[in-house]
This record gives sequence, structure tokens and C-alpha cells, in this order.
Amino acid sequence: MKILLTVVLTILWSANLPGQVSYQRILNADDEPGNWLTYSRTYNSQRYSHLDQIRKDNVKNLELKWVFQAKSLENFEATPLVVDGIMYLTRPPNVVVALDARTGRVFWTYHHKVPKEVSVCCGLVNRGLAILDNLLFLGTLDARLQALDAKTGSLVWDVKLADFRDGYAVTMAPLAVKDKVIVGMAGGEYGIRGFLEAYEAKTGKKAWRFHTIPGPGEPGNETWEGDSWKTGGGSAWLTGSFDPELNLLYWGIGNPGPDWNGDLREGDNLYSDSVVALNPDNGRLQWHFQFTQHDVWDYDAVQIPVLVDMEFGGRERKLMLWGNRNGFYYVLDRTDGRFLLGKAFAHQTWAEGLDENGRPIKRAGAEPSVEGTLTYPSVQGATNWYSPSYSPRSGLFYLSVWEYASVYYKGDPTYVRGERFIGSFPRGVYPDVMVDTDPGYGAVRALDPKTGERKWEYKMTSVTEGGVLTTAGDVLFSGNMEGHVFALDVFDGSLLWSRNLGGRVISSPITYLVDDKQHFSIVSGHSLYTFVLKD
Amino acid sequence: MKILLTVVLTILWSANLPGQVSYQRILNADDEPGNWLTYSRTYNSQRYSHLDQIRKDNVKNLELKWVFQAKSLENFEATPLVVDGIMYLTRPPNVVVALDARTGRVFWTYHHKVPKEVSVCCGLVNRGLAILDNLLFLGTLDARLQALDAKTGSLVWDVKLADFRDGYAVTMAPLAVKDKVIVGMAGGEYGIRGFLEAYEAKTGKKAWRFHTIPGPGEPGNETWEGDSWKTGGGSAWLTGSFDPELNLLYWGIGNPGPDWNGDLREGDNLYSDSVVALNPDNGRLQWHFQFTQHDVWDYDAVQIPVLVDMEFGGRERKLMLWGNRNGFYYVLDRTDGRFLLGKAFAHQTWAEGLDENGRPIKRAGAEPSVEGTLTYPSVQGATNWYSPSYSPRSGLFYLSVWEYASVYYKGDPTYVRGERFIGSFPRGVYPDVMVDTDPGYGAVRALDPKTGERKWEYKMTSVTEGGVLTTAGDVLFSGNMEGHVFALDVFDGSLLWSRNLGGRVISSPITYLVDDKQHFSIVSGHSLYTFVLKD
Repeated sequence: MKILLTVVLTILWSANLPGQVSYQRILNADDEPGNWLTYSRTYNSQRYSHLDQIRKDNVKNLELKWVFQAKSLENFEATPLVVDGIMYLTRPPNVVVALDARTGRVFWTYHHKVPKEVSVCCGLVNRGLAILDNLLFLGTLDARLQALDAKTGSLVWDVKLADFRDGYAVTMAPLAVKDKVIVGMAGGEYGIRGFLEAYEAKTGKKAWRFHTIPGPGEPGNETWEGDSWKTGGGSAWLTGSFDPELNLLYWGIGNPGPDWNGDLREGDNLYSDSVVALNPDNGRLQWHFQFTQHDVWDYDAVQIPVLVDMEFGGRERKLMLWGNRNGFYYVLDRTDGRFLLGKAFAHQTWAEGLDENGRPIKRAGAEPSVEGTLTYPSVQGATNWYSPSYSPRSGLFYLSVWEYASVYYKGDPTYVRGERFIGSFPRGVYPDVMVDTDPGYGAVRALDPKTGERKWEYKMTSVTEGGVLTTAGDVLFSGNMEGHVFALDVFDGSLLWSRNLGGRVISSPITYLVDDKQHFSIVSGHSLYTFVLKD
Repeated sequence: MKILLTVVLTILWSANLPGQVSYQRILNADDEPGNWLTYSRTYNSQRYSHLDQIRKDNVKNLELKWVFQAKSLENFEATPLVVDGIMYLTRPPNVVVALDARTGRVFWTYHHKVPKEVSVCCGLVNRGLAILDNLLFLGTLDARLQALDAKTGSLVWDVKLADFRDGYAVTMAPLAVKDKVIVGMAGGEYGIRGFLEAYEAKTGKKAWRFHTIPGPGEPGNETWEGDSWKTGGGSAWLTGSFDPELNLLYWGIGNPGPDWNGDLREGDNLYSDSVVALNPDNGRLQWHFQFTQHDVWDYDAVQIPVLVDMEFGGRERKLMLWGNRNGFYYVLDRTDGRFLLGKAFAHQTWAEGLDENGRPIKRAGAEPSVEGTLTYPSVQGATNWYSPSYSPRSGLFYLSVWEYASVYYKGDPTYVRGERFIGSFPRGVYPDVMVDTDPGYGAVRALDPKTGERKWEYKMTSVTEGGVLTTAGDVLFSGNMEGHVFALDVFDGSLLWSRNLGGRVISSPITYLVDDKQHFSIVSGHSLYTFVLKD
């Protein structure tokens, strides 16, 4: 009865407030630790929560509150949103669910029918939603952007971003900034030419497009041999960050295409494997930084830019912290993209190191070859798409790491519309399909953000695809491939709590408040589990 | 390390003991409350556990220990076995898993490949295993009986029971008695002629067959018009019970075929909708009791016979308690099948009542008709296959109940090999596909076994397919269609604890000990959840 009453009140209340989640609320999301209003909680993407009911000393008292089962065997990779007691999440392939964040009871479900002919490299996945005012925004596997009424789940508008038959898809959670919704394209293995686009949130009218692969006449096009830019990849399949003060949008860009054979695309291949800083009002490029020039290992730089203001080199600076798939940790000045620091955070054998501008000095013989070249990190990267975190309380940067190699083969790729443009495929993609490489392992690592020095690591038996969340209770939450979800001490990485939830953790956990009680939610396998402290 | 050591010791120990689970152990399963050695825990099928660490006053402290995800979207209906710290379970369709009952870590997995052409009425399901000595016994959807090495999961023997192309399948957990394994046939909707069979456990050699539908020259064949016995159904798709003192095996038999139109099979249609008492050594019929003569509503009598010794009518008697799909509760003398008591436990409109021999007096106009007849209980029955329980501490009999009607249509069925032999299909099978019937509800009910009087009920929003477990802690465990698992007070049905586990509970819970700690396991949706008391 109490639950019903609260639900009714919540619905009535939101019904009377046009624009429930205003841009102002997202801008100040850090002041609403009870909610989770955007993919990375806040525009700075620290994935740090101020909630502190669950602490180092009581996290062992977590107990299961409710479970949501996805009823799909596709990978379940979403980060949910939580708004005023309602959780919005996507389950595979493109199904949106609104449920009571207190009980798990479903309010409505929206099914987008994904055409059978859709081609995606890595499963029929979706990583989440954006919300703005009363609309939820879903990117679809057939390359559409859709706006749903958050109260009813009904479709408000629906635009086609690209032709999915060309290999375009959306798997990321869009980002709502001001009055716009920004979305990017997956499909880097299908010979796409990537882009980011912004749409007017209210109407679905296109505001701008930024090509991640510059065309003729645009700066950077000269980094592509001949017509190779046309199929240059540069996908964007994770959500970016935003600095409202600088009015800069930061977005990580994926690998150049074709993978594992760079002969057809001589040059640095901008803006593949780069972070781009764009003006969110018009999509114009303000600066860029490329992590891996002329990549032949699939070292996507799609990772979430983590924005931190801190003292660095003797003065307060606006920084961007970045643990890259290529194995290096970077500190950039996010006002202008200047390289401040670079240091390997995992074993890597493809570069001698970085020069003073952060450009890697490539090691001879590390490139893919016909007979196969064993190189660290693996094709899954030293880290990948699962979110890192920064805790202002510990002052440390946390990320999930793979210590693992692949054997890279050089093939002879031919572009065929809508098919994989790769020509070969590495061995040792995952430990369970690997052959003759080091068995490797996964870890959560804590880095000193100012030096890249490792402060501690929490080692796992297998590799990991779990994202990281830190909280004001000085707890770090993540999970691993064997299905264990765990809580670590942010200061020393010691294990505080763990549960076998039965499925691979391939998403990033969140925390929120309902009834002034801190909840912790994480996806493992095909279920989302929500825990609370035992009364 | 401790876990590893225990596992190694367990394996070594069992390797040195040929016949780990002797018949003697199953016979005395009641003395091993820490294990779960046969489908219904003990041969008397009371599904009552002597474990009492989890009690009325502390069940609220249950916390999740581990989860096993089935990685299949088919219905997950199995009751696991637990033997000396190892859990054996089947997940859909015919996959056997051995795992550490303490942690959920999988030791081995056995996949039986089910042919695509298999036809089953109600999903690619399996309800569990039998164990005897060092062998596990699996009945398959393509009508085979297989013996696996319990330590390795490797196939030891494999026999074909029937041709699955005729509609035969096995979905039940077999029953091991003495040196034999007994198994029966599903397929009542496919025009099969049902049977029970026993095989020598060690070798897979057939010991006997009992036809649930008697052939020419056999007593009971006269209850079938013409050749109708040939496709008379009489499936057996749940596990029976056994009284070692009387040396009698009790088995519930399914509906006659075709369903919903009895015109082609005039007569009582023995032994459909009956319980049969067989000599386990040779399969000979000792007695039978038919609950529903000439059934036209699909009132399968496959329910588990619950064997209780108690005072009845002034003297100690060996009783059989039975909540039947047809809506009546029965007490039989299990020495000879004599009818002692019958009383409706749910709303029913098909019978005026039972006569002094327990034979229903059918109500005119309740039969299926061309235009449809609304009759209680529904085609899913007033109860169905989910296990009931009897608690010797409370002295009460517990079962899950549907208060619900179907509209029954009379069709014109034609037998075609391997196809459904039904001719029509009722409406109002489940609330979510029902049309114009009463919305109905589900409940757990406690009956006084001596009178059939209702002592209490726990009502649910929707109907239920959850089995019931009772324990010496005076707790009753079950679950419902909305995904809630709950604990009730056995004395008054009050709710002690519940969790939303996110999927329909369509199986029966168990409890066991590891490290002297009581565990509670239940399947909800596509996962098995195991709980323990918080330390």
C-alpha cells in the first residue's frame, strides 16, 4: 500500500511537472546523489557517488533486494538511469524498461523491433539511455535515434541516422547536453565512415554532424591514403563527457578500418583512436589528441574521458584522465588537448614508449603478420569500454585491466558493403578461445592520476569486462567474468564483499537512493541485481 | 584454499567408495537432512526437511549466497539433488550440471543434444535427475534414459525408451528404487500409449514395462471403446513415491487422449487420471484408484503421492494424501487404495460431489462444447505438477492452488503420428492469455489432512506454479508467477520473508546443508538462487 501510494504520488508529481529532468538538473547531477541522470552519472564521468550509507565497514551487510531478468541471452551491457524512484534501463536487443527502483516491478516496456539483417561485430547490445525533460533517448541497432515518453514508454519521435545495411548501428547511450541529444555510430569493423550527430531533443531535428573521419578539404583528410577515408571506421560507441565551463564536448573515437592491416590506409588516420573536443552547439572541432597513430591492433580510443580539476605540475589545471585500450595512461589538459603525462599501466609490446608529445614510438616487429605476431595488449585492449572511475576522496583513478596478449594476423581485406572489413582475425581474443598465448589475468588497478604509478591492484582469475564505481563510503564496486560481484576498499584494494551472481559482469554498476536508502545495482549475465544494506 | 581442499577430499572420498549413494542411503534419506538424494527428498514425498537453522524467527535474515544462470530461455523446472556438498541439476533443455553447493562453481556440464524435431506440449523442460551408487539418471526429450558418471558427467549407458517421433518424451526426474531406475513417458497430447519402465541401474537393461493404458486381454481394456486405447494417452511426467514396507510404488497417471473430446473413447479410460500401485520388482499392478473417470478437461492425476502414517478414523493408518488437478483433495489407504475421504479444496463446477467410493458425480452441462463451456478448475487444474508438502510438525498438508476457470471447446480430433491429438484448445489457459473468464488468483493453502478443511491460505495476485517445501524451522517456502519467492509460517500462513527474483517460479524449492550451514535453493525464471542466513 505504501509502495503503491508512493508510486501514484511520483507519477502524479511528474505528470504535473513538464520537463522533469531539465538540463539544469543534469548539469548539477552531482548535487543529486540519489539519482543517476546520465550514463556516467555526471558530465565529468567520474562515476563517483557521494552516497555514503554503504561504507567500507558495513558493505558486508549488503543483501539482495530485487532482480530483473532480461529474458534475452544477448549480452546485457546497460547502465541504468534512475530518476526520482524510477529506473530506466535497456535490455538486449533494443528493449526499454521502466521499473520501480525500490521493488523491481515493471511499469512499462518498449520493444523496438530490430531487423534480422542487422550486422554488428559484438552482439545485439545496447548500453543505455539518455533522459532530458520528459523524454528518454534510445539509439538502436538499426541506426535510429528514438525519443520515448518517460512516463508511458510511447514513441514520440524516431529518426534514421544512417543505413544499417552499410554496417552502421548505435550501441551507446546517447548524451543529452543543453537542448540537444548527441549520438555516435558503431560499425568500425564494417567499413563505415563514423560520425557524431546532435538532434534537437524536443523535435528530433538534426542540429549538426561531425565526421570522425575528415573528408577531402577538411583538415586531417591528408592522414588517409587515397580514398581510404571513405571506409575509415572511426566509430563512436560509448558516451562522451562534457565540460560546461569550457563548453566542450569530449568524445573517444574508435579504430581505423580495416583493422589489422594498415597498408590500404597509409598515414596517421585521424581522428581514429583519438579524443575529439567539440563545441556542443555546432559540432565544430576545437582540438584533438590521437593516442595511436595508424593503428593495426584495434586499439579503439572509445573509453570514457574522465574530467578532473586538480593541481598538476604546480598549478590547478583542468585535466582529462585516460586509461587507453593501447595500454598507456594519459593525462591531458582538457582546455587545449596538451599532453601532460603518459605511462604504461599494463604490459605492452607494441611501443618503445611515448615521445614528449605523447606520440607512441612504435616497436619494430610488433605489427600483425601473415604468420601471426604475438603482441600485448590483446585485441580486447589493456582496458576497453567498461567505465573507469575517479574518487576525489582517495584521489585515485581506477580502471579494469587485462594483462593479456593476442596473436595478430595480417589479412587481405576487401570492402563489401555491410560485411566485415577486416581480412583476418586475431587469436587469443578471450582466454576461453585462446590458443597459445599467456593465460593472462584481469585486475582492477588504482593509479595515482598525477604519475600513473600503480597504487594497488585486485587480481582476478580471468580477464574482466566490469566497469568501476566508487563512492563516498570509500567502496569500489565492480565484477568479473566468473560472475562475481565485489566491493573493494578504495585505498588499498582489499576485498570487502563478494557474491557469485552466476553470469559475466559486462557493464558498469550504479548506486542510488530510494526512501533515503542507498541501493546498489549491477548486471551479471542476464540479470540486473539490486542490493541494499540489511536493516 | 579451504574450498579447494574440501572439494579434492570430497572427490577422493567418493572415488574410493564405489556406490556413493547406495539404495540404503536413499531408503534412509530422512536421516540425511543435509542432502537431497531423490526428487521429493524422501520416498514418501513429504518434501519436509528436518533442517531447523532457518526458522520462523530468523528467516528474515536470509541473504543471497550464489546464483546459477541457466543460459536458456526455456522453462527451468528442475529440482536439484544435493549429495555430500555437490549439487546436480538439469537446466533446459537436457543439460546436466554438477556444481559446488557451497559456491555455485560448476565442476562439469553434460549436454545431451535434443533433436530439432522433438514435439512436446509445454516447453523443452526437464524436472531433474535420479542418483544411485555413482550414477546419475537423466530422461531426455527424445525419450531416452541415460546414465552419467556422477564424478565426471560422462555417459555410461544410454537406452531408447520409445520413438520421439510418436510424441513420446521424458520430462520427469526418474526414481531409483533398489537396483532399478523407473521412468515414465510424457506426450499425453500426442496420442501416445503411456507406460512406466524400470531399468537395471548398473547396466541399462530393461527390467519391466507397465502400460498405463491396458491392452486387449488386460483388465481395464474394457474401459476403452474399440481401438481408442492405442492412442489413449495416460502419460506419466512426474516422479512417483515408494513405500518400502509395503514394497509398493505409487505413480500418478495423466489424462486420456484425445483431450476435451471423449466421444472417441467411451468408458472410464483406465488408468488415465489414476494413481497406480505397482510392485517395483516386476511392475505388476497391485491396485489403482481413478480420480476422474472419462476425463474431458485434462485433469491429469500426475501429482506427487504424499505418503503419511497417521491416525485416521480412530486407528493408525498408512495413508496417501492427494490434492488433485480436478479440484478435490483425497485421502486413500495406501495398502489397498481404499477411498477414505474426498473434499473440494478449490472452486469446481464439473462435479456435484464424490460418491462413497470417491467416484465423482458429474454435473450436467460442464463438458466441453462446440460453443465453449466455462468450467472450474481451469485446464491448468486446481493444482498441477508443482510439489505439495506435508509437515509432521504442523500436521498440515500444503499445496499451491489456482482459483481459475477455462472455457473448454469440443473439437474434432484426428490422430496424426507425432502431432497434437486434441482437436481444440481451451481459452483461459493462463491469466495473461485469457479472455472472458474470471481473472482468478493463486494461493498456497494449508489443509487439515484428516478432513480436507482449509486452515489458512496465502493469496497471490496471479496464479502460481511454485512447489512447496516445509521445514522443521516451521517455515514454508514457495514462489509465484510475478517472481516473488517467499517464506510463510506453516501454522498460520503469515508472510515471514520475500524477495523479487525477477522470474516465474515454476519449480519446487529445496534445502540442504554445507559446512553445517542450512542453504535454501529455488529457481526463479532462468536462474537458481541459493540463500543462507546472514552470519
